[in-house]
Amino acid sequence: MASEAATDEASDAYSKFIRKVKRLENLGQAETVLSWDQEVMMPEGGTPARSKQRSALSTVTHEILTSDEMAELLDELEGEDLTDEQEAVVREVRRAHDRKSRVPEDLVEELSEVSSEAMPVWKEAKAEDDFSKFAPTLERLVELRREYAEHIDPDRDPYEVLFEKYEPYLGVDTAEEILQRLRDELVPLVDAIRESDAELATDTFTGEFDTDTQEELARDVLDELGYDWEHGRLDTAPHPFSAGNQFDARVTTRFNPEEPLGALMATVHEFGHATYTLGLPRDHYATPLGDSRDMTVHESQSRLWENHVGRSRAFWERFLPTMQDRFPEKLADASVEDAFEAANEVYEDNLIRVEADELTYHMHIVVRFEIERDLIRGDLDVEDVPEVWNDKYEEYLGIRPDSDAEGCLQDIHWSHGDFGYFPTYSLGSVLAAQLFASAEDDIENLDDKIAAGDFEPLHEWLTESVHRHGSRYTTDDLIREATGEDYTADYFLDYVKSKYGDLYELDDYQ
Amino acid sequence: MASEAATDEASDAYSKFIRKVKRLENLGQAETVLSWDQEVMMPEGGTPARSKQRSALSTVTHEILTSDEMAELLDELEGEDLTDEQEAVVREVRRAHDRKSRVPEDLVEELSEVSSEAMPVWKEAKAEDDFSKFAPTLERLVELRREYAEHIDPDRDPYEVLFEKYEPYLGVDTAEEILQRLRDELVPLVDAIRESDAELATDTFTGEFDTDTQEELARDVLDELGYDWEHGRLDTAPHPFSAGNQFDARVTTRFNPEEPLGALMATVHEFGHATYTLGLPRDHYATPLGDSRDMTVHESQSRLWENHVGRSRAFWERFLPTMQDRFPEKLADASVEDAFEAANEVYEDNLIRVEADELTYHMHIVVRFEIERDLIRGDLDVEDVPEVWNDKYEEYLGIRPDSDAEGCLQDIHWSHGDFGYFPTYSLGSVLAAQLFASAEDDIENLDDKIAAGDFEPLHEWLTESVHRHGSRYTTDDLIREATGEDYTADYFLDYVKSKYGDLYELDDYQ
Repeated sequence: MASEAATDEASDAYSKFIRKVKRLENLGQAETVLSWDQEVMMPEGGTPARSKQRSALSTVTHEILTSDEMAELLDELEGEDLTDEQEAVVREVRRAHDRKSRVPEDLVEELSEVSSEAMPVWKEAKAEDDFSKFAPTLERLVELRREYAEHIDPDRDPYEVLFEKYEPYLGVDTAEEILQRLRDELVPLVDAIRESDAELATDTFTGEFDTDTQEELARDVLDELGYDWEHGRLDTAPHPFSAGNQFDARVTTRFNPEEPLGALMATVHEFGHATYTLGLPRDHYATPLGDSRDMTVHESQSRLWENHVGRSRAFWERFLPTMQDRFPEKLADASVEDAFEAANEVYEDNLIRVEADELTYHMHIVVRFEIERDLIRGDLDVEDVPEVWNDKYEEYLGIRPDSDAEGCLQDIHWSHGDFGYFPTYSLGSVLAAQLFASAEDDIENLDDKIAAGDFEPLHEWLTESVHRHGSRYTTDDLIREATGEDYTADYFLDYVKSKYGDLYELDDYQ
Repeated sequence: MASEAATDEASDAYSKFIRKVKRLENLGQAETVLSWDQEVMMPEGGTPARSKQRSALSTVTHEILTSDEMAELLDELEGEDLTDEQEAVVREVRRAHDRKSRVPEDLVEELSEVSSEAMPVWKEAKAEDDFSKFAPTLERLVELRREYAEHIDPDRDPYEVLFEKYEPYLGVDTAEEILQRLRDELVPLVDAIRESDAELATDTFTGEFDTDTQEELARDVLDELGYDWEHGRLDTAPHPFSAGNQFDARVTTRFNPEEPLGALMATVHEFGHATYTLGLPRDHYATPLGDSRDMTVHESQSRLWENHVGRSRAFWERFLPTMQDRFPEKLADASVEDAFEAANEVYEDNLIRVEADELTYHMHIVVRFEIERDLIRGDLDVEDVPEVWNDKYEEYLGIRPDSDAEGCLQDIHWSHGDFGYFPTYSLGSVLAAQLFASAEDDIENLDDKIAAGDFEPLHEWLTESVHRHGSRYTTDDLIREATGEDYTADYFLDYVKSKYGDLYELDDYQ
């Protein structure tokens, strides 16, 4: 009888708890709609009202998440005999609750104010190519974020604490190890490519490509890959992103007459994010079991589709004819090999992260990671950032920025007060390679299937191995569950060495 | 000292109160964004998640509005010495609080469930032209709404209580009086028109009009009227509507190749709603002082622009050349008089409210008003609705529906459980005429200004007289403030008698 009563009680507490969780998540989803609308649809003059709407929503969700009632329910549930699913939900909500509850409201407000004010300051400093104008603001943001991290856990490395906002389970040690390995192994590879005499067909997609036709092509590629239009849509945005939930996951992209390949790859990238979202279990909507795992896993899905599918020879076998139909005059003579080469060019002297190729991209990340980590840990002074930045670019990429605008002022993230985010871009690429290798093991002739436009087996594998689990597993468990192995950069390094060794005819890498 | 302390206390309570009000209104505005997106942008498959998001938002706002804390603040503030503005805010929130607090949650949930289930039942009954299939559901909805009204005020006529949801201050007696007068005076006018030999140029806009060009024309007309694109946008929706706030008020319309005039007038109508919203004071955003007054006033703004501007001879003098530029082949020979006549045709045998002309429209409303009032008051049985409906159409419009689908099943409103809404359509038209007459008094040669495309004086007059007041005044006070007179149907009746008497060459009306 006692045990039965205990079960009833647990179930009662859990019911109360899950009702609150669903409300929280639905309000969070409402915020996502407001944010999508703001980026894609809202007339500019709507900003003052929209900011207040979003702030009201975030106040309400903050209050629910950090309420005494939520704290009591979490405590109560931790003593209960829960199912694995229930435990996973409690684990995720507990983590969010603890992080949010420990930071005083004043500090959150100050951070929000300083970040709002930082944006225009950063913009101006960038426009005027003058880091010193942004330095005091950056200094303040670093201080506030260190304070923030200390509230969450005074006994741990503050960068570790901040990093866990974006990737809660892999650990900053793993990130550090992986990024160091990328640095150590990619710097010589990039050097070798720079010295190669191989001539790639890098002018395959040069010229002016009508943007309306580019949009049709973006719809073609989404059709081809199996995007579910009943649960999605395509729009344009200045900074492509995807947003939504398993019932409604939308893609945005952007078009530039001179960059048809850029638009296409951005579309495929965002498709990867959206298709992950659409693969989350519908019956767990608005609970962690129906939420995506964090940034590393999300980015692995976009990179897998962008790089392992979209930049593969097999994909171009399938897709080049479609692109030729859309742009017959420009592409009539292009071969699959030309398109493949153009899609995999390693740029000689690009300083800008968002314009980087698949390979050198990670050196951009390593620079940012090392600098932000040292800033937050107090091992680097803000005033030294430009010099250190430029030195690192010279060391890792063999090019030195002439200006702060093209150097340490290029990205918006720090002005938002976001530290710890950048590494997840590389961690995601690394995971993409590991997952794709595992999919290749499991799916017979995956390459042939891609070349034949049969993407269903890959979708099924990803849904089965990753998407359907939502946030049921921690990131490391999810990787083991999906691939049978611990997280590793081996597959990524093998993949890039083999691909670029081959393309650039590098004896040491083939 | 005591008095000073009292003031401080009042101010403290008011600050707390207004913070809550703003949060409430911002959450309400968030709901508006979700609803706009759902109608205009959302992929169909997004419905299950969107319903839950909207329901979470409405639960949260319901809880804030009906909370004990809100009740206490309202009580406290009613004893305080408030400014006029503060009193208006308290009055509006008190009304909303009382209505929501008095109805038990169970009943609200049941109504919401029964209405959700009613929609498909109504659709099927309409498709199969079989009222008996919808009758039990309608019966249940009537019962639930009567119960609902009884909770709000057991001592008053339940229809009056329901009507006040949409028009809180004019009173159902006024509505009844006005609608009866419309019936008494318009039925003979419609009869006279039916007997007239006048031949209007009703085929001016017949043929197929490319819908892309129609959209350009809709943008032309919005430009012409002075729509503020920095704070708005135009999209299409199956049922045109407008939505938003003073920073972001959006218009939707719909295009049909055979109905260029319909699309144009729908656009002007929705522009009227949006321009009211945009005229609300920005510094009172998210409080009743920055909210529009209710349905009657809102509809007066859309009808004023649609009918008194968009269907005027002056407007067509100005706008016909633009339309001819867009459709040169179709409209080269059309004269201003042709366009004016076509825009003011009184249809011979239209049974459908949403397709009605400006004049007979009100007979459609009178029928619905009389029937829903009698249903809610218990003076009419649901099973008798089709017969009574058809009899009234015969009596007021001289035409008898052959089917329920084209009769009492045509509108969606009752299946939503909405009773009391229909009258505000006519009340708004009546007010539009009164306001326009007053504007004509105040603005020298308003007609000439419209013909010259100078809409600024009318905008200014409406902003000054109506928009900038938000919900500061009750509806009746607002009308007196704007026109110097009590609400009256005199202007509307004079306007239609004169316009249609002239157009249809009716001796008794010229």
